[in-house]
Amino acid sequence: MLRRLSISVVKCYHVQTASYSSHAPKVAVVLSGSGVYDGSEIHEASSILVHLTREGAVPQCYAPDILQMHVINHRKGSPEEKDKRNVLDESARIARGQVLPLSELSSSVAQAVVFPGGFGAAKNLSDFAVNGVSCKVHEDVVRVLKDFHKAKKPIGLCCIAPVLAAKVLGNVTITLGRKDDGKGKWPHAGAIDAACQMGANVVEKDVNEIAFDDKNLVVTTPAFMYEGRFHEVYHGIGNMIKKLVELVK
Amino acid sequence: MLRRLSISVVKCYHVQTASYSSHAPKVAVVLSGSGVYDGSEIHEASSILVHLTREGAVPQCYAPDILQMHVINHRKGSPEEKDKRNVLDESARIARGQVLPLSELSSSVAQAVVFPGGFGAAKNLSDFAVNGVSCKVHEDVVRVLKDFHKAKKPIGLCCIAPVLAAKVLGNVTITLGRKDDGKGKWPHAGAIDAACQMGANVVEKDVNEIAFDDKNLVVTTPAFMYEGRFHEVYHGIGNMIKKLVELVK
Repeated sequence: MLRRLSISVVKCYHVQTASYSSHAPKVAVVLSGSGVYDGSEIHEASSILVHLTREGAVPQCYAPDILQMHVINHRKGSPEEKDKRNVLDESARIARGQVLPLSELSSSVAQAVVFPGGFGAAKNLSDFAVNGVSCKVHEDVVRVLKDFHKAKKPIGLCCIAPVLAAKVLGNVTITLGRKDDGKGKWPHAGAIDAACQMGANVVEKDVNEIAFDDKNLVVTTPAFMYEGRFHEVYHGIGNMIKKLVELVK
Repeated sequence: MLRRLSISVVKCYHVQTASYSSHAPKVAVVLSGSGVYDGSEIHEASSILVHLTREGAVPQCYAPDILQMHVINHRKGSPEEKDKRNVLDESARIARGQVLPLSELSSSVAQAVVFPGGFGAAKNLSDFAVNGVSCKVHEDVVRVLKDFHKAKKPIGLCCIAPVLAAKVLGNVTITLGRKDDGKGKWPHAGAIDAACQMGANVVEKDVNEIAFDDKNLVVTTPAFMYEGRFHEVYHGIGNMIKKLVELVK
């Protein structure tokens, strides 16, 4: 039985794209691991994939082939000092095996690119979690963002990921949610000041809303910058993906 | 900046249930790790959580505090022999930290219980992947299923997880999708024969459909037993959760 199941694991690898039309737009999804505190926020990534296939797009996941900054035990909220995990391998958990090295992504193979949030965007795709405004962004993320921007292909980012666009593209309009309202619903609002200092025009939006920069074709939504319920984040991401796919159709 | 982000990580832990009404039904979600090939199928688990909060329920995740049967590198499709991971800790990646030991779950603390699929249900919650019809089910899973069944509280299961209900409850009506149609869309159909041998009444359903056993209050849907697109699985699970919440309201 184990062997039979293992064989079907291998068979699974080439099916997600099986039943799309040849005109379906291809959209790259850049993951940073699997888990909110050291990788991609799982529900944001999943919502992006659900909305992409519903809108008729073909998603293809990518991730950098590097070690994670660290591994967080998500139950205890603390680092596992001896554990080492690879961003590409862990991202494959979200991608159901179907993930490619980020080095293979360019604007010639996809009509748009999306970055879910989660601390992986601030720890693995960049070191924003450590160095804030003066952070470095992973060279392939820099290359991909500049490439899609130059090719006038739309870029979607949610949660903390819009800081990547702020750092790399500078003068873009993005949202990172709202400033701290004293009720603890916007606990990561410090990122807004940092993105402003990077040169971005940061607009306040609610979890169900998007910011759309029509000059730079950048679409952003707060997602889990807001301490909301799962479906609230899901619907905000839905609005981001609808806009993104509308732009490439 | 790292310290600030780390603090907000801790703050995150108690927010998912912040804005629910006191009459909202509580629904337990039993996870088995995080990743389709050795844990819970991530998109099934996420879809369950999104539909639960949209339907006005309060989800609480649980998982057994045990080692995973093994760790699968999801990119390569092969086991990482030296890696060991704990089911409860890995499930916390899906639960955003909010997960409790399965030993603490009983029908006195929730109005319903849901089991997403993924190989974790067949490797960690049971050894079905190894022993098929003669599998053993984890003692807390046996206890929880019998407890909710006896208390006439509804049980939802998707993908391969319905075999747990077949093994523990015997004569229940469930679906595990459709028999192999030769097109590779139902690669796990062998589970249907096994569940029949366990005494279950297995009915064939498409990915958007549910099987509802109104005597035993068991609701099931094929999910990723079908090699479908992300939104197809999402919608089938939506139908399962709507039925489940309708039963407890």
